[in-house]
Amino acid sequence: MKGNLLVVHGGAPTAVINSSLYGVVTEAKKHEEIDKVYAAIGGSKAILDENFMDLKQVDDERLKLLLQTPASAIGTSRYELEKSDYEQMVEVFKRNNIKYVLVNGGNGSMDTCGKIYKACGDAGINVVGIPKTIDNDISVTDHAPGFGSAARYIAATVSEVAQDVKSLPIHVCVIEAMGRNAGWLAAASALARKKKGDAPHLIYLPERPFNEDEFLKDVKELYDKLGGVVVVVSEGLKDKEGKPVVPPIFQVGRSVYYGDVSAHLANLIIKRLGIKARNEKPGICGRASIAFQSNVDREEAVIAGATAVKAAVEGKSGVMVGFERIPGEKYECKTILIPIEEVMLHERTLPDKFINERGNDVTDEFIEWCRPLIGDDLREFISFLD
Amino acid sequence: MKGNLLVVHGGAPTAVINSSLYGVVTEAKKHEEIDKVYAAIGGSKAILDENFMDLKQVDDERLKLLLQTPASAIGTSRYELEKSDYEQMVEVFKRNNIKYVLVNGGNGSMDTCGKIYKACGDAGINVVGIPKTIDNDISVTDHAPGFGSAARYIAATVSEVAQDVKSLPIHVCVIEAMGRNAGWLAAASALARKKKGDAPHLIYLPERPFNEDEFLKDVKELYDKLGGVVVVVSEGLKDKEGKPVVPPIFQVGRSVYYGDVSAHLANLIIKRLGIKARNEKPGICGRASIAFQSNVDREEAVIAGATAVKAAVEGKSGVMVGFERIPGEKYECKTILIPIEEVMLHERTLPDKFINERGNDVTDEFIEWCRPLIGDDLREFISFLD
Repeated sequence: MKGNLLVVHGGAPTAVINSSLYGVVTEAKKHEEIDKVYAAIGGSKAILDENFMDLKQVDDERLKLLLQTPASAIGTSRYELEKSDYEQMVEVFKRNNIKYVLVNGGNGSMDTCGKIYKACGDAGINVVGIPKTIDNDISVTDHAPGFGSAARYIAATVSEVAQDVKSLPIHVCVIEAMGRNAGWLAAASALARKKKGDAPHLIYLPERPFNEDEFLKDVKELYDKLGGVVVVVSEGLKDKEGKPVVPPIFQVGRSVYYGDVSAHLANLIIKRLGIKARNEKPGICGRASIAFQSNVDREEAVIAGATAVKAAVEGKSGVMVGFERIPGEKYECKTILIPIEEVMLHERTLPDKFINERGNDVTDEFIEWCRPLIGDDLREFISFLD
Repeated sequence: MKGNLLVVHGGAPTAVINSSLYGVVTEAKKHEEIDKVYAAIGGSKAILDENFMDLKQVDDERLKLLLQTPASAIGTSRYELEKSDYEQMVEVFKRNNIKYVLVNGGNGSMDTCGKIYKACGDAGINVVGIPKTIDNDISVTDHAPGFGSAARYIAATVSEVAQDVKSLPIHVCVIEAMGRNAGWLAAASALARKKKGDAPHLIYLPERPFNEDEFLKDVKELYDKLGGVVVVVSEGLKDKEGKPVVPPIFQVGRSVYYGDVSAHLANLIIKRLGIKARNEKPGICGRASIAFQSNVDREEAVIAGATAVKAAVEGKSGVMVGFERIPGEKYECKTILIPIEEVMLHERTLPDKFINERGNDVTDEFIEWCRPLIGDDLREFISFLD
């Protein structure tokens, strides 16, 4: 079935979404069935606008730069599609002889992917999803490209901040990790530790109700013992009623705005404990960082892109590429194809087995699960303070 | 004059203060006059406690790890010394046969260094300062170790965040740079630009009074044109009365606390312009980052440490090592020795020639001055959005 391929990005970018794009383009070039390799320039809206660029025209040497390009080189969007948009898309595909559609994105984009698949019906267009996430909240797959690099960023950064706080132990440092409903990234900061007792000293996740009094008690105890304390918190912490722990600070129309949870908790430590505290919130700096790309994540992202092309060419449709671990001592994964309806809009949070009983740390089982995903060992340090 | 050397760190660490320590130890090993190479473990208080470690005992291979160790490997402090402490220090030096004292720190530590020098009088103890700063606010010297790496961090990070904001152009992103009274770091974010018009689109410095209305007008105009806007602000922005632009949020005893300026300005954009905005505040993540060390900065940090040892051994005292540019096409610096009283507690802010007329950007002259300090070229990207 000879035709053109279209790849589109949806939602927030990751450090390796361009690596998946690299996988798509290099794999597509190998298939005779594929004529043009269109990229939608600027997300799903670009499909409706027929704003396409043929990436087959880009030479291999320049394409390699995708592996070290942050964010999305073809643009992405959070454009909300209407029912009629999907019908229009099918017309666009037909008009442009597009036979293969690849949607790279997170939960929301997999919903879009599924709806495009349904709209295509029996038009002979194969629709395949490529997962990406920094939050790791996509269902069924063991993990998804983007998470390993964001996890490496937070682990490496927390290990560096920990050295700073240890060498000038005068305050509590509260570091905010992305992840509004799923705590995978905050959890990954535990990989900063080289030995028991190392920072981060406390980790708080949105999967557990946040208890202010217990938090302050834990901080006080650690501060009295260590001087410098490093706390990592998920941006989406909620109390036992499910309300954000940060009080709303203002409202515009019907939208309520909250401050940064890290700033709120640092202020709480100052006010209630009289201990110096500061907050760091790298935010987008983390998800865009190429220096902290995980080599494993990057390689898997390329594989995910290439696998999606192969699946589409083989006639698969309505599926998302996923990863499944092969049991054994050494970390190894194989790709699988997951029916798209199993992942559409599902949100995967941290399972209980990965959170400690007290709800202020992760378990060794989580650390074991996460370690291979962040790639090469973190940088070695020397310290005369131990 | 055979005796022991003592090196002490003061104030907040930088990404290369350990590189200066490496320079100190490796140079000291070459001099017969120097017996032990003591490090004060934990800043100036450690001198009074005689908490010393002889780094001559550490083998060269392990010492090299200092070049990639964040923060301070020997610890630092903000301990406030009393007059009597200086007298006691001289006794400690005599008792431990310390003939050479090196103080590595910023403005505050150079004040300490000057006071130690005075207290030593004619006791035959040579006291030399090694500068370190991320803010670049030390006087007389062209720049000081630590700034180049912090500048590289902010430039590289802003260039990555800029790709993110360009690929998903739905908001204004306000990034906060360290520097309470001096805007050198926020200014260095301009090095993220590859061509005119690139992000950061606006830069605000504490050297100019911040005008809220002009700020919002500038943001609105850019947002209407570009969609995504990147703004970099110094943490210490003040209004024309010299008051912090962030209203005080609470008070503990006599200390008044302010929120993060980046969060404040992002909220202002949402409230007053109805535009989505978010804030990033990498804070300590920036000053501790080894991945963004500038190779030029690291090399100069080593040289500063080694130069201080040579100066002390040659009988110099009451001086700080500084850098002076050698005029010419190619960037080249020579070390100089600056009388310590010229730098004690002086704070150097950005000169007028480095700030544009409107006060919302830097000049080309600043960019030219700053570029060599951040070292190797930033990573190359590819984008199909241009």
